[in-house]
Amino acid sequence: MTDYAAPLADMRFALTEIAGIDEIARLPGCEQASPDVVDAVLEEAGKLAGGVLAPLNRIGDRQASRLENGVVRTPDGFKDAYAKYVEGGWNALPFAPEHGGQGLPFVLATAVFEMWNSANMGFALCPLLNVGAVEALHAHGTGEQKRLYLPKLVSGEWTGTMNLTEPQAGSDVGALRTRAVREGDRYRITGQKIFITYGDHDMAENIVHLVLARLPEAPPGTRGISLFLVPKFVVDTDGSLGQRNDVRCVSLEHKLGIHASPTCVLAYGDNGGAVGFLIGDENRGMECMFTMMNNARLNVGLQGVAIAERAYQQARDFARQRVQSRPVTATSAGTYPIIHHPDVRRMLLSMRAQTEAMRALAYYTAGAIDRTRHHPDGEVRAAQQRRVDLLIPVVKAWSTDLGVEIASVGMQVHGGMGFIEATGAAQHLRDARIAPIYEGTNGIQANDLVGRKLLRDGGMAAQELLAEMRALDAVLAAQPGDHIAAIRRPLLSGVDALALATQWMVEQSASALPNALAGAVPYLTLMGAVTGGWLMARAASAAQQHLARGDGDRAFHQAKLLTARFYAEHVLATAPSLLPAVAGGSTVMAFDLERF
Amino acid sequence: MTDYAAPLADMRFALTEIAGIDEIARLPGCEQASPDVVDAVLEEAGKLAGGVLAPLNRIGDRQASRLENGVVRTPDGFKDAYAKYVEGGWNALPFAPEHGGQGLPFVLATAVFEMWNSANMGFALCPLLNVGAVEALHAHGTGEQKRLYLPKLVSGEWTGTMNLTEPQAGSDVGALRTRAVREGDRYRITGQKIFITYGDHDMAENIVHLVLARLPEAPPGTRGISLFLVPKFVVDTDGSLGQRNDVRCVSLEHKLGIHASPTCVLAYGDNGGAVGFLIGDENRGMECMFTMMNNARLNVGLQGVAIAERAYQQARDFARQRVQSRPVTATSAGTYPIIHHPDVRRMLLSMRAQTEAMRALAYYTAGAIDRTRHHPDGEVRAAQQRRVDLLIPVVKAWSTDLGVEIASVGMQVHGGMGFIEATGAAQHLRDARIAPIYEGTNGIQANDLVGRKLLRDGGMAAQELLAEMRALDAVLAAQPGDHIAAIRRPLLSGVDALALATQWMVEQSASALPNALAGAVPYLTLMGAVTGGWLMARAASAAQQHLARGDGDRAFHQAKLLTARFYAEHVLATAPSLLPAVAGGSTVMAFDLERF
Repeated sequence: MTDYAAPLADMRFALTEIAGIDEIARLPGCEQASPDVVDAVLEEAGKLAGGVLAPLNRIGDRQASRLENGVVRTPDGFKDAYAKYVEGGWNALPFAPEHGGQGLPFVLATAVFEMWNSANMGFALCPLLNVGAVEALHAHGTGEQKRLYLPKLVSGEWTGTMNLTEPQAGSDVGALRTRAVREGDRYRITGQKIFITYGDHDMAENIVHLVLARLPEAPPGTRGISLFLVPKFVVDTDGSLGQRNDVRCVSLEHKLGIHASPTCVLAYGDNGGAVGFLIGDENRGMECMFTMMNNARLNVGLQGVAIAERAYQQARDFARQRVQSRPVTATSAGTYPIIHHPDVRRMLLSMRAQTEAMRALAYYTAGAIDRTRHHPDGEVRAAQQRRVDLLIPVVKAWSTDLGVEIASVGMQVHGGMGFIEATGAAQHLRDARIAPIYEGTNGIQANDLVGRKLLRDGGMAAQELLAEMRALDAVLAAQPGDHIAAIRRPLLSGVDALALATQWMVEQSASALPNALAGAVPYLTLMGAVTGGWLMARAASAAQQHLARGDGDRAFHQAKLLTARFYAEHVLATAPSLLPAVAGGSTVMAFDLERF
Repeated sequence: MTDYAAPLADMRFALTEIAGIDEIARLPGCEQASPDVVDAVLEEAGKLAGGVLAPLNRIGDRQASRLENGVVRTPDGFKDAYAKYVEGGWNALPFAPEHGGQGLPFVLATAVFEMWNSANMGFALCPLLNVGAVEALHAHGTGEQKRLYLPKLVSGEWTGTMNLTEPQAGSDVGALRTRAVREGDRYRITGQKIFITYGDHDMAENIVHLVLARLPEAPPGTRGISLFLVPKFVVDTDGSLGQRNDVRCVSLEHKLGIHASPTCVLAYGDNGGAVGFLIGDENRGMECMFTMMNNARLNVGLQGVAIAERAYQQARDFARQRVQSRPVTATSAGTYPIIHHPDVRRMLLSMRAQTEAMRALAYYTAGAIDRTRHHPDGEVRAAQQRRVDLLIPVVKAWSTDLGVEIASVGMQVHGGMGFIEATGAAQHLRDARIAPIYEGTNGIQANDLVGRKLLRDGGMAAQELLAEMRALDAVLAAQPGDHIAAIRRPLLSGVDALALATQWMVEQSASALPNALAGAVPYLTLMGAVTGGWLMARAASAAQQHLARGDGDRAFHQAKLLTARFYAEHVLATAPSLLPAVAGGSTVMAFDLERF
């Protein structure tokens, strides 16, 4: 009932036509990503996702990870599935070869990551957090730290965590109180961390915690925070596991969703202090954290895509089976499944079109990350970095907001059965709901987009993007067909609206910053809708070219034209109407706080 | 943490300025609803809701109703709370005096019903279903049936249920198979019903099931369905309880939300057939069901309002307590709660403004129902009936869609704490999610709006409404102030868009019906947003008049101007952008079913 099959055709299309994986495969260091290898990776990942991880999704939700005698037990089957995942070399996919990684492009890893998250979001969170730990160590660890920890973290034999949050320090990381005291070449860590994803579990023999803490004489706020590596089992210089460290999971949160993923309260130093090792310099912990944050945010945005895809597949399968009421389209006697009802078709197409748009944006951004890493031309790398910095908060917030919305539509397709937990549709909504919250709430993403990304460079990165969007119209104008024609006007209107909104934001004086920030979320939504619309228009254009040439999968390309047109009519067309909200912050700020 | 205080000021405002309760109180049969009585009812209902029902909301969610040895047990405290509710005479509030009702206007009962649902939606479902049973009996029961059952159902000593759904017959009621065989003056009922809300429980001494079933020779489909009264305990002619009837709860559904409300599978006739009594004529059961459906749909729409209000209050209280990050608006040193952050203020105002708009629409429609019942002028009654028929699907679908969205925003205000079940914010989202599904899915509401309400009278009822909306502009034009001015343009644009969309819908030929129905949900959303905007503009106009006269609560009226302006900028302004989706059904229908 809750099968998952990786949408390989659309993934290949997005990789090729939107992210430009063929071009990326010609960059130095990416040569392995030949079309054959890409195909094989996608096929095999699809098998693991559909055959092993997806069937555990409901079990994970029902059983949840549990704390038993101080040890976290994952749901039945998770340990075996994780072993298969590690044995298959999947964890090593996105990492550099020097520590055992496969050195495949990030954009390919992104497609594969989408599959893990569609199949089993509660499972996929373990590798997701691990990526952050690897990247922080890779960028800031000492040679010895890399030698001792990276190979095992890259292979997945050990897993990594990120320890930021404390009860009084959530979004406000600078308020944290966990203490670190130097003791020779190491530190003693004491304090309590909350919301630690996979902070303990039974799938790996060691867990490497990356912990933000404060030295005794550190300055207040974020400038007094240092990053420490605190292994569950202290690692000897020969790599073998030594003593159990003084860090314990003291409780698990009872959450709305992602039940399989243990969300731990970790106590450090109840018995004298956990042994920790400094990563980077003292008091520079925030920089280390920022290193990994961009990619983690992309991966969380990808969870929005992934859960939307899963919800779509389940709703579609239900709509094909469930017989109920005679549709107005019925042409003969007999029974019809509900997929024949016009509004069910609208719901499914809405889920599908937006999922394709989100996928396009996520892969596009991942491809840009590959270019920032591998392109030989420094100017190209810099331009791509500006694009990535601009789009990361959009990928994160826009995709996760839509992920919730689409999972909710998926429930609606099920009617009354959707509200029954055994159906599985409700789980997708519950799981999806965390993504707009963690890794920086979507409000924080919007503040980042407006307050840092836009105002920092006076809107330059946004102007570059807008110019590229506008240039597409000349291409579309030269192409035939009603669908392309129907897309052009909403695209131009959307781009105009985004340009206006950007200019308005950039022109706000410092004193008007609160008003600007009160419009930041509508602005981000506008940018997401328009950028998604631009990429869907590019997709339509590519599909039209294939149709004109008569190559490729004709039915796929015709369907793509229709999803792009649907997106233009149902989503892109609404984007300009966000302008009053973008510029309406003064109404928000005028409302008396006492009157709420 | 999850306190609820009835929003008495806004309720009174909506009753007075939007629904016109003073005018209603002058109608024959409504004279009891003097201002003093209205105030007293609201005050006392607020106490029961806030003091008794609201504290049980979390308990109900955690414990859920459970089936033990064939008997359904409600969560701790529910039985006592229900007894208080009955003792206070609350159940009798909306019903006619002839059977023990209080004969107060429906619009006042609507406000009170909002409170029960805000306080504890899982509890409030029991009275909600009971209303339907009372109305069906009142309209179609024999004198003897009314004498035996109505007084106890009106008082609430007994409760009523509605039994429509079977596994193969959900939205498609005509597919039901439960059988009824005549046996003298009664019938024997055999079959299985699912999704029966409060189908069994321990709060009342008897339960009166209204059951749709099919006679042996009945025509197929909806024309062969009859309605039967099947009491849990058969009632003797003197009103005393006799034998236990042959109906049993065989299982409870495990649902996403409304855990306190037992959703029963009921087995009729496992031991020879349950005793049932025909209501109305044989094979006319659907008409009887339709009698109660309009008001039940309004009450479900009201659940959207109610859960939005509860989510708003909880998010606001959290935002006032939670200290996190220094806001850009900070003017001095020290800590600030997150309500100072511009985006948190935007979220709260968005919740509040839309909740006020939904409340206005629900009360407005309820007031129109009072006029259909009590107005001495037959033409007025007919015109009000057209208005009610048009707006009921909008109240149901628009308010419940927004209820889900607003509960989700409420979680978002909480950040990471919102995802933890103990916080209580997630429960509101889980509870809210059923309302777009039951009592006719929102897709069915939209089909009803377009396919029946609009096309049946060629758009006449919609034209009457549009004309009234347009007439408001002259009033607004004569009023001073930036806020009123800022509302006028989006209102006119919204009304124009709704007029265009209505004309487009009405002009669709029969062959284009699938295209029209594929745009029905966007059309309904458009009508909800514009009608809500019109009523918020009326609210702003009334507030402005009070301010000009210097009477009433100045701060309340100033706040109302701002919520109305916010609504115009953030919601009403987006309404016209739905036009391409309304008219875009051909894109939906062009997508090949095989390609989904």
